[in-house]
Amino acid sequence: MNILTDAEDMRAWSVEQQRERLSIGLVPTMGALHAGHEKLIEGAVDNNDAAVVSIFVNPTQFAPNEDYERYPRTFDDDCAKVRTMGVQAVYAPDAATMYPPDYSTYVNVEGLSEGLCGPFRPGHYRGVCTVVTKLFHAVMPHRAYFGQKDAQQTAIIQRMTRDLDFGIEIVELPIVRDTDGLAMSSRNAYLSEEERKQAVTLYQALQAGESLIDDGVQDVQAIVDTVRNTVDPAIVLDYVELVDADSLEPLKEASGSVLLAVAGRVGATRLIDNIKVEVA
Amino acid sequence: MNILTDAEDMRAWSVEQQRERLSIGLVPTMGALHAGHEKLIEGAVDNNDAAVVSIFVNPTQFAPNEDYERYPRTFDDDCAKVRTMGVQAVYAPDAATMYPPDYSTYVNVEGLSEGLCGPFRPGHYRGVCTVVTKLFHAVMPHRAYFGQKDAQQTAIIQRMTRDLDFGIEIVELPIVRDTDGLAMSSRNAYLSEEERKQAVTLYQALQAGESLIDDGVQDVQAIVDTVRNTVDPAIVLDYVELVDADSLEPLKEASGSVLLAVAGRVGATRLIDNIKVEVA
Repeated sequence: MNILTDAEDMRAWSVEQQRERLSIGLVPTMGALHAGHEKLIEGAVDNNDAAVVSIFVNPTQFAPNEDYERYPRTFDDDCAKVRTMGVQAVYAPDAATMYPPDYSTYVNVEGLSEGLCGPFRPGHYRGVCTVVTKLFHAVMPHRAYFGQKDAQQTAIIQRMTRDLDFGIEIVELPIVRDTDGLAMSSRNAYLSEEERKQAVTLYQALQAGESLIDDGVQDVQAIVDTVRNTVDPAIVLDYVELVDADSLEPLKEASGSVLLAVAGRVGATRLIDNIKVEVA
Repeated sequence: MNILTDAEDMRAWSVEQQRERLSIGLVPTMGALHAGHEKLIEGAVDNNDAAVVSIFVNPTQFAPNEDYERYPRTFDDDCAKVRTMGVQAVYAPDAATMYPPDYSTYVNVEGLSEGLCGPFRPGHYRGVCTVVTKLFHAVMPHRAYFGQKDAQQTAIIQRMTRDLDFGIEIVELPIVRDTDGLAMSSRNAYLSEEERKQAVTLYQALQAGESLIDDGVQDVQAIVDTVRNTVDPAIVLDYVELVDADSLEPLKEASGSVLLAVAGRVGATRLIDNIKVEVA
């Protein structure tokens, strides 16, 4: 397995694959790999000739008050893990190379970035779009894999990829959950035992909302209230929202492809979760 | 010569070239090709295995009050011209395909976009960076050619290309002037005979400024005043500025690589011109 730390070296490697007409699947990650990442990596390995995992804790997607410094970094373990999974290359640039002092270029998706987590994480999606653009240019994949846990992120990357004519297929894979139902996240490592018990109510609340939808309830306020009332009161909610799964526009009633999404802070840890429902 | 109107077809063509290890040189244009473009095209033809010219009048780089509708469109003549020059492909997408109704992604270079023409053309460089990103993704060139006439644009594209890890070499070629000294521009077609006589004073004024610099004058105000006083008073100047040629930062004194730049309106036509000087 190749570990590449420079965009130029990474691109040279990818050009070689393309000359042999091999397809490349990219899984962009910030490391601290868990079972959710593993599903994405399996997807990339199974459906492409070569799989690349990028590991980069991207400073531009953290707001100043967020956990950039504290974010878990487990590079050696991550490399050991992906090596056994059949990944051909890890792209792991360092922050100083990615963002030199006079760095000044940003990619932004308007509209889609402004709802849901947007107002709570100023600059976050601009940082995500910028780094994903850089990763796409270095790796030049045919397909890129993202998790539904970050559903807004996937919708934004999908739009960006179409708008900017990247010619890359964006694949979204379902949320992977722990046995207690909590959505896999590198940030789960921050939770105390008590916080973990509180955190699992996020998914229970989404399931309660889904039950209402399955029962034919279309009233958005009723669904949102049920979710809010099922979440452990120790969790400070940023939002509970029912939006169109593609446009992320708030819905007047539950119909079509809907995304029921929640974000909240469990102690100092911000967690998100969601469920997608096809309303018949 | 291939005429391609769709990003996917363009990319397929470029992938074929790359599989044969052929280098691609791109000249991005808005058509209405003149001798300035021809120099860029010659550069692309001479220094690459395959040359591509893009012809696209890009709506997102025109402010609402600007000349998007009126901009000269001479597509058939342009194609005939580049065909004789040894260009292998023309990429000519249409605006509705490039920017569907829910288009929402923009690329912006901060800092460099904010001086010189920036304040006079709100959104212009954001539109330029966005369309150049799309052209780069469709054509996947090894080198891209820009004219020094748009020196700020070239500096911005250079920075964007580095920042986003495009892996493309940006080549800037010198300004081509008509026999009367006026810098070649598609917008010169707008000028009446009288306006044309006024317009040539822009270059005469820059030369007067350059003479002072060559004579060892370092005082920026003195240089700028000389330029301002040499321009025909019928021209409404947007700015005369002496900046660092790379950072585009205003200079306190003329030293190093300097860019002496002017922008003004001759009747309804906005023209720009510049001179680069290496101060010994």
